[in-house]
Amino acid sequence: MALSGDRFRVSYTVTAKQEGEALEKAEALCLEQTVEFPRDLLPPGEIAGSIVGRVETFDHLSDSRFHVAVSYAVETTGFELTQLLNVVFGNSSIKPGIRVEFLSLPDSLLGTFKGPRFGRAGLRARVHADRRALLCTALKPMGLSSQDLADQAYRCALGGMDVIKDDHGLANQPFAPFRERVRLCAEAVERANRVAGTHCIYVPNVTGPASEVMDMARFAKRAGAGGLVISPGLAGFSLMQQLADDDSLDLPILAHPAFLGSFVTSPENGISHYALFGQINRLAGADATIYPNFGGRFSFSRDECSSIAAGAAASMGHVKPIFPAPGGGMSFARVPELLEVYGNEVIFLIGAGLHRHGPDLTKNSSYFRQMVEQIIVPTSVR
Amino acid sequence: MALSGDRFRVSYTVTAKQEGEALEKAEALCLEQTVEFPRDLLPPGEIAGSIVGRVETFDHLSDSRFHVAVSYAVETTGFELTQLLNVVFGNSSIKPGIRVEFLSLPDSLLGTFKGPRFGRAGLRARVHADRRALLCTALKPMGLSSQDLADQAYRCALGGMDVIKDDHGLANQPFAPFRERVRLCAEAVERANRVAGTHCIYVPNVTGPASEVMDMARFAKRAGAGGLVISPGLAGFSLMQQLADDDSLDLPILAHPAFLGSFVTSPENGISHYALFGQINRLAGADATIYPNFGGRFSFSRDECSSIAAGAAASMGHVKPIFPAPGGGMSFARVPELLEVYGNEVIFLIGAGLHRHGPDLTKNSSYFRQMVEQIIVPTSVR
Repeated sequence: MALSGDRFRVSYTVTAKQEGEALEKAEALCLEQTVEFPRDLLPPGEIAGSIVGRVETFDHLSDSRFHVAVSYAVETTGFELTQLLNVVFGNSSIKPGIRVEFLSLPDSLLGTFKGPRFGRAGLRARVHADRRALLCTALKPMGLSSQDLADQAYRCALGGMDVIKDDHGLANQPFAPFRERVRLCAEAVERANRVAGTHCIYVPNVTGPASEVMDMARFAKRAGAGGLVISPGLAGFSLMQQLADDDSLDLPILAHPAFLGSFVTSPENGISHYALFGQINRLAGADATIYPNFGGRFSFSRDECSSIAAGAAASMGHVKPIFPAPGGGMSFARVPELLEVYGNEVIFLIGAGLHRHGPDLTKNSSYFRQMVEQIIVPTSVR
Repeated sequence: MALSGDRFRVSYTVTAKQEGEALEKAEALCLEQTVEFPRDLLPPGEIAGSIVGRVETFDHLSDSRFHVAVSYAVETTGFELTQLLNVVFGNSSIKPGIRVEFLSLPDSLLGTFKGPRFGRAGLRARVHADRRALLCTALKPMGLSSQDLADQAYRCALGGMDVIKDDHGLANQPFAPFRERVRLCAEAVERANRVAGTHCIYVPNVTGPASEVMDMARFAKRAGAGGLVISPGLAGFSLMQQLADDDSLDLPILAHPAFLGSFVTSPENGISHYALFGQINRLAGADATIYPNFGGRFSFSRDECSSIAAGAAASMGHVKPIFPAPGGGMSFARVPELLEVYGNEVIFLIGAGLHRHGPDLTKNSSYFRQMVEQIIVPTSVR
C-alpha cells in the first residue's frame, strides 16, 4: 500500500468534563472512525502511522467544550460520498458529546465530486432571475387530487413564482399518484409560463423507494419537470448525488431536510447546520438547501440559519455555491432582517403564508414576487 | 378520494413545560407530519377529517414528559417505507422535544412489506446452529490488504465463527478494493468450511454509492458471500430493503448502526432504540440488527440494549423476528448478565476482543465458540 499523503480534516466539538477526558475522546475519534481497533494491537507501519486519524489541533473553547481537528488519509474514504460520511461521523455518531463542525477537503478529494450541476448561477439562468432573491412555493395540502394540485400550480406560476415544488409529503399516494400528478402539474406550469411569458419551474418530489427513484426522475424529466426535490435524510445522500450527477436528467436538485433534524437538535451531538445543510448537501449535488427559517414554527436560530447560508457559499474548490432556501416566516415586516442574513442569494420558500394572504393565489404570488423584486440588495451593501 | 379507514399509530414522547404546551405540540405533530398546513385553512371533508393525524391518546407521564399516540391514514404512506418514515418523523425530527417510541402498524400496511427474508430461523438454518447464540467477528483493521483480510477470515472461520463480516469501514479503498477483497475472503471462508466441516458465512460490506450497491451485492453473491452488511443510516433504509427483497440475491442482511447515532443520543428527541434498531430495521428487511452492547466503549445502557432485543422480536404480523447483534464487551465473566438480557436469541459480535485474547485467531475463535455452546439457556428459563 502506498498512501498519497493527502489528508482531509474534520473539525469536531468535543464535550467533556476536563481536558483529560477530551483528549481521550479525541484519541477515540482517531481510532473509531478508521480502524476500529485498539492502538496497541495495530500492526506497525502505515496503518498506525497514516490510516488512523491524527489529532491536528486541540483547543479548550470554554467550560466543557473542546475543539478538535482530526485529519484522515483521503484513501480511507474510497473516494466516494457514503464512505466519506462514514469516516466523518459513522460510529462516532453513537457516542455522546461529539459534534461535527466543518469539513476541510483537499482538491484530491474534492475532485471526485461533481458537486451541484447548476449552483446559484445555473439556477438563476433557468428561471431568468439575474440578481433578485428567488421565490418558491410548495403544492399542498396532501390529500388534494392531482388536478387540484395542478390548478394550484397554475395559479401560483401565473403570479410569478420561480419555483413550484411538491410538498415533501407528496409521494405516490392514491389521492394524487406520482405520475399523474407530475404530468398534470408540469403541464399546468408550462401553460402558465406560456400565458405570462415567465420561466417558472415545476419541481416534483422524487423521494421514494430506492429502486424507483431514478425512474421517477426520468419520468419527471420527460413530463417537463424543471427540477427535482428529494429528502436525503430519507433517501440517502448518495442517491441525491446520483440524481445530480446524471447527465441525461440535467435537472437542478432541491434538498429537503426531512428526517435530518436529529442531527442538529443538540449542540453537543450530531452535525452542525453549516456542515450538514451547507457542505454535505453541496458535496451531494444539491443546488438549493431547504431548511426552516428562524422566526417560523421550527426552532432554528438566526445564527444557525446564517451558518447554513455560509456553508452554502463557502469556498470549496470547484464545488459551486448553492442557494439557501429558508422556509416560512416571510412578510414585508421581516424584510430588513432577512436582507441582513441572506442578501439576494436566497430562495424564499412560502408555503402556508401564501394561502393565508388571501383567497387568490395568483394575486398572493405576485404580491410576494413584487416583494422580492423590491428587496434587491445593492452589491455595495453586501 | 376514498380512504380505507385503516390507520397506523405512532407513539411519541413529547417534552413540554406544561400540559398546554404538550397539547400544542401534539396538534402540531398531526398537521406537520401530513398536510403541513394550518388547520383553519384546510378544505373541509376528508383532508381535515382523515388525512390529518389524529391524537388517539394523551397522557402525562412525569414532570415534563407526555405520551402522545397519533394515528395516520395508511394511505398517507403511499404504502412504501420511505414515505412511511417521512410521516412518522420527517419534519418533526426538526422540532425539539419529540421522540418516536414505537410504531403500531395494521396488517393492511404491514402487508406491503416483505420484511426480513431469513429472520432468526432462516439465519440459524444457514449457519447450522439450532439453539445456541451465534458468533460473529469483523475483519479489521482498515488498511490491511485483501490477502491479509482473507487470511484473517480463514483463521476465524476455522475456529468456529458463524458469521465473518467486513468491518463497516471497509469500503472500496485502494488497500483492499471491494471486488478483490470479497473474492479472496469468500474463497477463504469456503476453504475453511471444507477443512473444518463448518458452515460459516462471509458477509461483505456493500455500503457504497447508491448507483453501485446492487451491482456490488450481485458480485458478492457470485463470489460466494453468505450475507451482506449495510449501514442504512448512510445508504438509506430503502436501499437495504431493496437488497433484502431481491429474490436473485437471497442473502441475509445485517444492518450496521453507523451514522444513526444522532437519532438515539437524546432521551427527548429522535427515535427510540426499540423503534429504530428493532422495528424499522425489521420493516426494512434486516435479519440482524447490529448495535454497541452495554458495558463496552459506547454508551447504550442495559435497558436500551434490552429494548432493541425486544423490538427485534415483538409481534409484527408476518414480519419475522430478527437477531439482536450486540458488539463488544463479551467475556466469560459477563455471561450471566448477557444471558439474562439476550438468552440464546442473539448474535454476539466480537471484534477487537478476539484479537486481544491472544495471537492465535483460530484458537481464540474456538474459545468463544465453546463459550456460546456452553451458554445455551434452557427453554424453561426464558
